[in-house]
Amino acid sequence: MKTQVAIIGAGPSGLLLGQLLTRAGIDNIILERQAPEYVLGRIRAGVLEQGTVDLMREAGVSERMDAEGLVHEGIELTYGGRRDRVDLKTLTGGSTVLVYGQTEVTRDLMEARRAAGATTIYQAANVRPHGVKDEQPYVTFERDGETARLDCDYIAGCDGFHGVSRQTIPAEVQKHYERVYPFGWLGLLSDTPPVSHELIYAHHDRGFALCSQRSHTRSRYYLQVPLTERVEDWSDERFWEELKRRLPEAVADKLVTGPSMEKSIAPLRSYVVEPMQYGKLFLVGDAAHIVPPTGAKGLNLAASDVSTLYRILRLVYQKGRTELLDKYSDIALRRVWKAERFSWFMTNLLHEFPENEPFDKRMQRTDYDYFTSSEAGLKSIAENYVGLPYEPVE
Amino acid sequence: MKTQVAIIGAGPSGLLLGQLLTRAGIDNIILERQAPEYVLGRIRAGVLEQGTVDLMREAGVSERMDAEGLVHEGIELTYGGRRDRVDLKTLTGGSTVLVYGQTEVTRDLMEARRAAGATTIYQAANVRPHGVKDEQPYVTFERDGETARLDCDYIAGCDGFHGVSRQTIPAEVQKHYERVYPFGWLGLLSDTPPVSHELIYAHHDRGFALCSQRSHTRSRYYLQVPLTERVEDWSDERFWEELKRRLPEAVADKLVTGPSMEKSIAPLRSYVVEPMQYGKLFLVGDAAHIVPPTGAKGLNLAASDVSTLYRILRLVYQKGRTELLDKYSDIALRRVWKAERFSWFMTNLLHEFPENEPFDKRMQRTDYDYFTSSEAGLKSIAENYVGLPYEPVE
Repeated sequence: MKTQVAIIGAGPSGLLLGQLLTRAGIDNIILERQAPEYVLGRIRAGVLEQGTVDLMREAGVSERMDAEGLVHEGIELTYGGRRDRVDLKTLTGGSTVLVYGQTEVTRDLMEARRAAGATTIYQAANVRPHGVKDEQPYVTFERDGETARLDCDYIAGCDGFHGVSRQTIPAEVQKHYERVYPFGWLGLLSDTPPVSHELIYAHHDRGFALCSQRSHTRSRYYLQVPLTERVEDWSDERFWEELKRRLPEAVADKLVTGPSMEKSIAPLRSYVVEPMQYGKLFLVGDAAHIVPPTGAKGLNLAASDVSTLYRILRLVYQKGRTELLDKYSDIALRRVWKAERFSWFMTNLLHEFPENEPFDKRMQRTDYDYFTSSEAGLKSIAENYVGLPYEPVE
Repeated sequence: MKTQVAIIGAGPSGLLLGQLLTRAGIDNIILERQAPEYVLGRIRAGVLEQGTVDLMREAGVSERMDAEGLVHEGIELTYGGRRDRVDLKTLTGGSTVLVYGQTEVTRDLMEARRAAGATTIYQAANVRPHGVKDEQPYVTFERDGETARLDCDYIAGCDGFHGVSRQTIPAEVQKHYERVYPFGWLGLLSDTPPVSHELIYAHHDRGFALCSQRSHTRSRYYLQVPLTERVEDWSDERFWEELKRRLPEAVADKLVTGPSMEKSIAPLRSYVVEPMQYGKLFLVGDAAHIVPPTGAKGLNLAASDVSTLYRILRLVYQKGRTELLDKYSDIALRRVWKAERFSWFMTNLLHEFPENEPFDKRMQRTDYDYFTSSEAGLKSIAENYVGLPYEPVE
C-alpha cells in the first residue's frame, strides 16, 4: 500500500487532519488499533474553541455541529460563597465557545471520511512507523493475522498519550515535562437537563466540581476525588449528594439528578514532550502533550496542532515548501505551552490542594479574588478560555 | 503624659500617620526606640505608588518629593534574551510611579513633624502597650533610665516586623501566613548614574537582578543570592561582574560602576498576621505584613494601611463613628492580600528557583511569555505595579 500521509490513530485529531488533507487533494490513510465503536465510546471533552469550530468548517464537517452545538457566551466560577461570571463574549470583543461533544465531533468526522471515500483501517494491530529519518518512511501493521506495509511521505502520530508514535522517537532526543496532580476527576454522564445554561467551575473546601453539558438534555458533571478512590464506591446517589454540597445552594437546589450513563475516574496530568517531530514523523495532540481538563483545552489543542501540520503539508505539496517541515515542532509548541499554562493555572486556581500551606491557600483565594475582580484579570481568563490565536506557519 | 493617639515607631508609617493626624487636629506622640540618625540610615525602597504620593501631598509634605522625585512611566522586564517594556502609563490609563527614596520620605516627614511642633520621643527603650482591651490604654517606656507612662485613646503599632506591637497581641488570637523564599537580595548603593532611565527587572539562569535608582546620580542594584552568602565575600568588583552577566548585553555595556556606599543582604519573605488589630491597638505596615521587595510594595502597602487607619480615626474623632474602629483589620487586609499576591507573583516570575522541576521552570518561562505578550497580561502587571485602588473605609 502507498499513500502520501500515513495517519496513526482515528480519534478526532487523526480524522480531522485526514479530512483536511483529503479536501486539499493530499492522499492519506488512517490506521487505528481499535474498532470504530470503541473510538466512539470514549467520553471526552465538550467545549470547542472558535479556532476548532473554524477548522471543522474548513474541513466541511460543520453542518450538524452548527445546527446542534450550543453557543456559550460565558462561564461561571464560584469560590467560598462568591459567584462570578466570566463574560467571554464581552471580554474578548466577540469570541464565544461552542458546546458540542467530542463524541459527536468524532462521529461527524467518521461520516465525512466515509462519504469522501478515504481509507481508514480499523483494528490494525502492532502498528509501527519505520525509517522516519530516511528518504522513504513506511508503517507496518497486522490485520486479520497478515502483516501489511504502508509506504508514505510523512507520518502523523495522532495516537494519543499511550500510542506508538512518541515511543518511536529515540529516548535520547526526547525531553519530557510533567506534573502529576494529587487527585483525579470522577465524571458522570446523565440524560438530565444541565443545572445551568452555562458551565460552572466550582471551588469548594471539599474539592473542585464542574457542571458541564453536552446538550440541553445531556449533562456531564465532575468531582475532584483523591486518586485512591474507586469508581465502584461511588453510587449515583453518593455522587449527586457530594456534587450538591460543592455547589452554591441556589445552584444545588436546581440540580436535576438521574441515573448515570457512564461514570469514570481520570487522573489529572500536565505533560509535554519536545520536540514534537522526528524526521518525517510528526506528533499531534495527546501523543505529544496532555493538559488537565480544567479549561477544556485537550481537544482544542489537538485541533491547533492539526491546523499547523495541515497548513505546512499543504504548502509542502502545493508549493514545494519543504523547508517548513522542520518548523512544525517549534510553531506548535508555542501555543502548546500557553495552553498548558492556562490549564495549570485554572487547575491550581480551583482545586483543593490538601497539602498546601496556609499561605498558599490564601494565595489561591487571593488569586481568585484578583482575577475575578479586575477587568484585566477577567480578560486574561476569557482570552485563554476561548483560545489564544493560532500561530502562523510562515 | 497624655495624647489621643500613641504611635509606636518613627519610620515612614508612624511619621506619615502622625503628620496626617496632626493636620486633622488629632494629638499624637511618637515613641521610637532608635535615634533619628539610625532611622535615616536604613536603606529601603524607592518607588512610590500614586496613592502614596497623594497621601504625602495630603499630609503636606510633598514639596521636595514633587520637585526631586522622578516620574517613571514604565518598567522593563527581561528574561532569556527577551526585553519587554511595561508601559505603566498607557496600560493603566494614565498612572505612573515616582522614584523617591524611602530615606528622603522619612527625612521630609521628620522635618515636617519638627516644624509642626509635634512630639517624637527617640531612644525610648522597653516600649510596652498596656490595657489595649480596656477603656483607657497606655504605653510605658524608659528614657534616660526613667520609666514613663503615656496615656492615650488608641495605639498605632508602626514598629515593624520585629517590633513589640504585634507581640502584644495574644498568640492564640493571631493567625500567621508565611512563605520564606530560598534566597536573598544582595543590594548595592552607589553614586553612579542609573544604567537606564527606567527600572529593569531581570530574570537570568544565574538569578534575578534589579537595576533601581534613587536619583539621576544615585543607583541601587540588587542580585539574587543564596541565603548562605556573606556580604563580606562580595567585593564591589565581584558584584559588578555578576550584575553584568545577568543583564542583557546592551544594558551591561552601558553600566557605570563605582565604589559602593552600602552593601547588604536581605532575606525575602511573604508574611501576614491576622487580625491587624486587637482592642485599641492597630498594626500598620511591616508590623503586620512583609512582602518580598519584587514589585516595590513594602512602603506603599504601609502607606495604604496608614490611609485606612487615618481615615477611620478622623471619622471617630470628628463624627463619633467609633463603630468603624472594628473594621480596620478587614478593610486593610483586603488590599494587603492583593499586594502580597502581586509581590509573590513577581518574585515567582523573575527569580531562579534551583529546586524547581523542569515543568515548573517551563511554566515560569511561559508565564513570562504570556504576561508580556498579552495586553490583558501586561495590564494586570501594570495595574498592580502602580497600585490597586485604596479600599474605602465606609
